[in-house]
Amino acid sequence: MRDVRTIWWDDGIRMIDQTRLPAELVTIKIETVQDLCEAILSLRIRGAPALGAAGAYGVALAAICSRSIAPEDLLRDLDRAGDIIKSTRPTAVNLSWGVDRVRKAVAGADDADADEIRDAALNEAERVADEDVAVNRALGDIGAELLEDGDVVLTHCNAGRLACVDWGTALGVIRSATEQGKDIRVYACETRPLNQGSRLTAWELVEDKIPATLICDSMAGMVMRQGLVNKVIVGADRITCDAVFNKVGTYAHAVLAKEHGIPFYVVAPLSTFDLGQREEDIVIEERDPDEVRWAGGVQLAPSKVKVYNPAFDATPLDKVTGIITEKGIIERADMVRGL
Amino acid sequence: MRDVRTIWWDDGIRMIDQTRLPAELVTIKIETVQDLCEAILSLRIRGAPALGAAGAYGVALAAICSRSIAPEDLLRDLDRAGDIIKSTRPTAVNLSWGVDRVRKAVAGADDADADEIRDAALNEAERVADEDVAVNRALGDIGAELLEDGDVVLTHCNAGRLACVDWGTALGVIRSATEQGKDIRVYACETRPLNQGSRLTAWELVEDKIPATLICDSMAGMVMRQGLVNKVIVGADRITCDAVFNKVGTYAHAVLAKEHGIPFYVVAPLSTFDLGQREEDIVIEERDPDEVRWAGGVQLAPSKVKVYNPAFDATPLDKVTGIITEKGIIERADMVRGL
Repeated sequence: MRDVRTIWWDDGIRMIDQTRLPAELVTIKIETVQDLCEAILSLRIRGAPALGAAGAYGVALAAICSRSIAPEDLLRDLDRAGDIIKSTRPTAVNLSWGVDRVRKAVAGADDADADEIRDAALNEAERVADEDVAVNRALGDIGAELLEDGDVVLTHCNAGRLACVDWGTALGVIRSATEQGKDIRVYACETRPLNQGSRLTAWELVEDKIPATLICDSMAGMVMRQGLVNKVIVGADRITCDAVFNKVGTYAHAVLAKEHGIPFYVVAPLSTFDLGQREEDIVIEERDPDEVRWAGGVQLAPSKVKVYNPAFDATPLDKVTGIITEKGIIERADMVRGL
Repeated sequence: MRDVRTIWWDDGIRMIDQTRLPAELVTIKIETVQDLCEAILSLRIRGAPALGAAGAYGVALAAICSRSIAPEDLLRDLDRAGDIIKSTRPTAVNLSWGVDRVRKAVAGADDADADEIRDAALNEAERVADEDVAVNRALGDIGAELLEDGDVVLTHCNAGRLACVDWGTALGVIRSATEQGKDIRVYACETRPLNQGSRLTAWELVEDKIPATLICDSMAGMVMRQGLVNKVIVGADRITCDAVFNKVGTYAHAVLAKEHGIPFYVVAPLSTFDLGQREEDIVIEERDPDEVRWAGGVQLAPSKVKVYNPAFDATPLDKVTGIITEKGIIERADMVRGL
């Protein structure tokens, strides 16, 4: 186990550059809000909980970079920076949540001077990051109870330590079960088009010596039909009152799991919940068509072909066996009555 | 429309090198059985009906390359060459079928001299290729009746002209419907790990000006749930009495189609049928793990991670709405009673 977090503060934001994995483990320093936006947009950092910390640290960074002296000017700078950061990934609710945590912590601090606001912003961002680690450990402990010795779990995308400040949500549950001495094996879906499953999840599992098998997303149905897995565990980017938004492909896994009588669990901190909204209210981010047309400098598809490249899909709650939160497990029966 | 076939004879086997698409259209000449085996193994030619022609031309090529003078020696050479060719892709029944067509056409020709056997082998191979084009046109005409003006069809892998000698099976149906003046649009799944959907199907559709949208395989469920497609049409590599074997990912599409009430059709010449066997009898070819770990010279996954890379999956017949053959359509009701 490495000691480094996915994102932390050290005279600026430091983070693992996830686009360089699995080839090499590189950390980068982010010194401007613009660079942070670039890092989020290009997925150097991604994963709902990690984006929460990125949003929080981003507002702290904006405070420290701002030359404003008057508190009201500084607070206005933070508001603007927060809006820019939020706009980079509209579907992931945690990013907004992290930005707002820090903005609220310093809002109305008219009696504080600018330096006190800067300190308060950074302190709150550090709290967001530390809390994320604690929440992930709690998710892991609660979720691990659902896993039995010998279970084989299919997962999608990366809901591991790299998706969080540390430990992970879906992979955190697997890590906690492993830590308890249970023998757990994992099938990791590669997660096209950006291969977070092969690049990040497979890398984490190999690092932690948790037995893992990598498959293409399209093989999940076959793997379930062959009886090779007996649980599906994924993370979430946003949970509305009627659906779980997660990396595209999650919905198909949920349908296939139900077809094969395999429990389908979502692991998500409460900061992922957005119960005031319905599925239809959520804009699903569409990404660059060339993510699908090209891979590793090689052209996979004609440049003229149209591409549909949504980053997320929505899984209605009746396909979800349970949602594991840091406060306990929400069962399907309760979800169907409405979250 | 190009006039060139996918595979033909011109003083040796000529074929489109499908590994070079979509970047460039290159044809290669194959002058030895060994080179043919390499071309099949590395998927320069692939697709069940095209492999039938490749098998047939391969035996003809073996006859022409053989230095044997005695007919019985020549026939023994053809037998050996046929077995080697068959072993390259064990799951695709058409390859065996094509080899056997030519071997049978010359078997027992003890009264013919070696040159007559060579001529007979090549003539039979040419017949196999010509028949494939005729069969594909028949499949197209029959299948096109199922398509209505305005239909949007999801397809997987490449069951187009490049999978056949010409025209195509699943894409042949779409081509025939388009030729009849119907407005048909297509969602093409990229088909990991070798991207026959993005490299070949998208290329064919762009060439033929049939409106196409490329998606990742994992997006099919979402696309169905959003109501963006109303039919699924795929090819097949082998049809046993209880299942359709086709490119891995097909099974998941079939389950998802059933979940959304979308008809799921398989288009396959009768040469694909292998009704004396059951699903459990068929060996599913597993391919090189590095197909999943790498893409275009870039490492997607840790070299140490285990990979499961089956080339095909099996879809039980109760998930198939109908199988379109050159002799007519087999409906689900009949299939469930047993093929």
